[in-house]
Amino acid sequence: MAGKPDHSDKDASRIIISVDAMGGDAGPAVVVAGIAMSADKNPDIGFILHGPEAELKPLVAKKRILDGRVAFRDAPDVVTMEDKPSQVMRNGKGTSMWSALDSVKQGEAAGAVSCGNTGALMALSMLRLRKLPGVNRPAIAILWPSLNPQGFNVMLDVGADVRADAQDLLQYALMGTSYVRNSMDITRPRVGLLNVGTEEHKGHAELKEAHSLIASYADDAQFEFVGFVEGGDIPGNVVDVIVTDGFTGNVAIKTGEGTASLMRTAMRDAFSYSILSKMAALLAMTSLRRLSKRLDPRRVNGGVFLGLNGTVIKSHGGADATGVSAAVKLAFRLAQQGFAEKLAARVASSAALTQDNAASASRSADPAE
Amino acid sequence: MAGKPDHSDKDASRIIISVDAMGGDAGPAVVVAGIAMSADKNPDIGFILHGPEAELKPLVAKKRILDGRVAFRDAPDVVTMEDKPSQVMRNGKGTSMWSALDSVKQGEAAGAVSCGNTGALMALSMLRLRKLPGVNRPAIAILWPSLNPQGFNVMLDVGADVRADAQDLLQYALMGTSYVRNSMDITRPRVGLLNVGTEEHKGHAELKEAHSLIASYADDAQFEFVGFVEGGDIPGNVVDVIVTDGFTGNVAIKTGEGTASLMRTAMRDAFSYSILSKMAALLAMTSLRRLSKRLDPRRVNGGVFLGLNGTVIKSHGGADATGVSAAVKLAFRLAQQGFAEKLAARVASSAALTQDNAASASRSADPAE
Repeated sequence: MAGKPDHSDKDASRIIISVDAMGGDAGPAVVVAGIAMSADKNPDIGFILHGPEAELKPLVAKKRILDGRVAFRDAPDVVTMEDKPSQVMRNGKGTSMWSALDSVKQGEAAGAVSCGNTGALMALSMLRLRKLPGVNRPAIAILWPSLNPQGFNVMLDVGADVRADAQDLLQYALMGTSYVRNSMDITRPRVGLLNVGTEEHKGHAELKEAHSLIASYADDAQFEFVGFVEGGDIPGNVVDVIVTDGFTGNVAIKTGEGTASLMRTAMRDAFSYSILSKMAALLAMTSLRRLSKRLDPRRVNGGVFLGLNGTVIKSHGGADATGVSAAVKLAFRLAQQGFAEKLAARVASSAALTQDNAASASRSADPAE
Repeated sequence: MAGKPDHSDKDASRIIISVDAMGGDAGPAVVVAGIAMSADKNPDIGFILHGPEAELKPLVAKKRILDGRVAFRDAPDVVTMEDKPSQVMRNGKGTSMWSALDSVKQGEAAGAVSCGNTGALMALSMLRLRKLPGVNRPAIAILWPSLNPQGFNVMLDVGADVRADAQDLLQYALMGTSYVRNSMDITRPRVGLLNVGTEEHKGHAELKEAHSLIASYADDAQFEFVGFVEGGDIPGNVVDVIVTDGFTGNVAIKTGEGTASLMRTAMRDAFSYSILSKMAALLAMTSLRRLSKRLDPRRVNGGVFLGLNGTVIKSHGGADATGVSAAVKLAFRLAQQGFAEKLAARVASSAALTQDNAASASRSADPAE
């Protein structure tokens, strides 16, 4: 209010996001357009951009809003969608992805965003940032359009690891609630465990074990455990966090995306069937725009890697500028909330709890009826 | 063409479908309305109707088209949606579901249709009809709206059993191709194995084993093995048959159904947002009807139980008359094609093949590169 804002202070208070400019389907120009969009909306954000500097500098120079807000880290190599994670772990040191993660590791940036190869990004993230103490399997969490008041549910794991045991699923529940609390202002998230029915006798034995383990933590960790949920609840309004293994979660999101895309195709066909239906489509344009905005996958772009020492956001490989900007915004928001530190504290305390509870849980599981 | 049709001959040549009148959410009136719809469209169909005869007779009497085409089997008890399969297996003898399956077992009917509890129906089907020789786990196959020329893909298993090993998945591939061939006139179906990626190094070890097992049968069993497919391919056009375990398949279909339902809600909201959008909706009515017809789940109502001595169709619990009629039509069509016999022959010959191939497969798996 009083006095002229001090520009250098402003710079210092900015939250810096590390961005891998390469690896997306549409190339670095789209990534630069995305961060320019973010910079325009948010004066408190700055960037470290990773990739071939000679290629990136002219792209950044074209966007006046990025003036003085982008630092470069030259990285000549690119991780492609075809590269296997194991290869990238051995030979990826010169890549923009590796460099982007290193900025987080060095504490230069509060989080990293990449549109690149998911498997490679997870493998490099584990290699460079390391797992949080107490986390066995990190997870990828995504937002999913739903009938919830907030418009989204969080589901994890959607593909970091094809396997998860009861302990892992408990960790996912804890990390997922922490994520929801910090990204959506929900103080007591509702958590559900994905299964083929809501009755407690259904599903795999591991799921029954996870059910009682997660239930035993609900009070201490301040979430509401809804119990088993079904695939139909993912876009519904009975939970805020859906916990599952990475195999099931990955199949579920891809089936959901595929179904949505089939419906869009069918809708397009229906409205281009005849001259009359084309006219109706013209008149319905505003409604159709409203619909597609509500279900726009770009609004929820960004899978968050949970369980690492640092925040990593995987943007969709096919993301456009709006999508990249959404992923950057998510990284910013989580940094602003001090999410990485809160998550680390939470997982550490729950790891201690797990050791305590292992004994008491096995006691309370005695047949007492 | 010549002479008056002989009525008794007509009766004798009818294909008889056994229908469980009870257990659906909407009660027996809807089931009777459904079979009346089928009877109206198809002169070659007759019914045995199971349930409390005193309740059913007046309902049937109201539908003139059903005159002389329905036999009754009085069954006082009903399997509810809450009943556990194990209870029904012990105490279900007086239920309409049990009775409906018995008509198939006795050879009085060519197939059974029920809207009741899926778990109970599968358990009773296994108890009364028994598994086909060579089948370890029966499966439930459903049709899924897709971008295929035929408009549907077949997916199995969607919930008969939460587990499936490589042998089971091979059986699913064989049963699924047989089903597609007999219900859709596709001579060389394309088969895909559901996984989290299409690369051969991805997914669980069991899936890799199933991949090579199914591949080794493709030529003999006359299907095209596409290899691994992803969730997004379920509504797509790269396969005709999608093979997966009952846990994954069940989560996938429910996620897809939930997503479709979310989109319908969002579309309704978009078109009722303002007076203008309501007017647009009125004008777009024909297009919207065309869309909803294409994606109408009632058109594809009916999960088929594969791997039993007899055809059993599970209609959706919430099916209306159109849905019941679609399930009846599917049972009729499969009976007409002699599907049960063809499937039995196919599975038997493949069981013999499996024994032969077990030896040669392990030989060919020797590291020969």
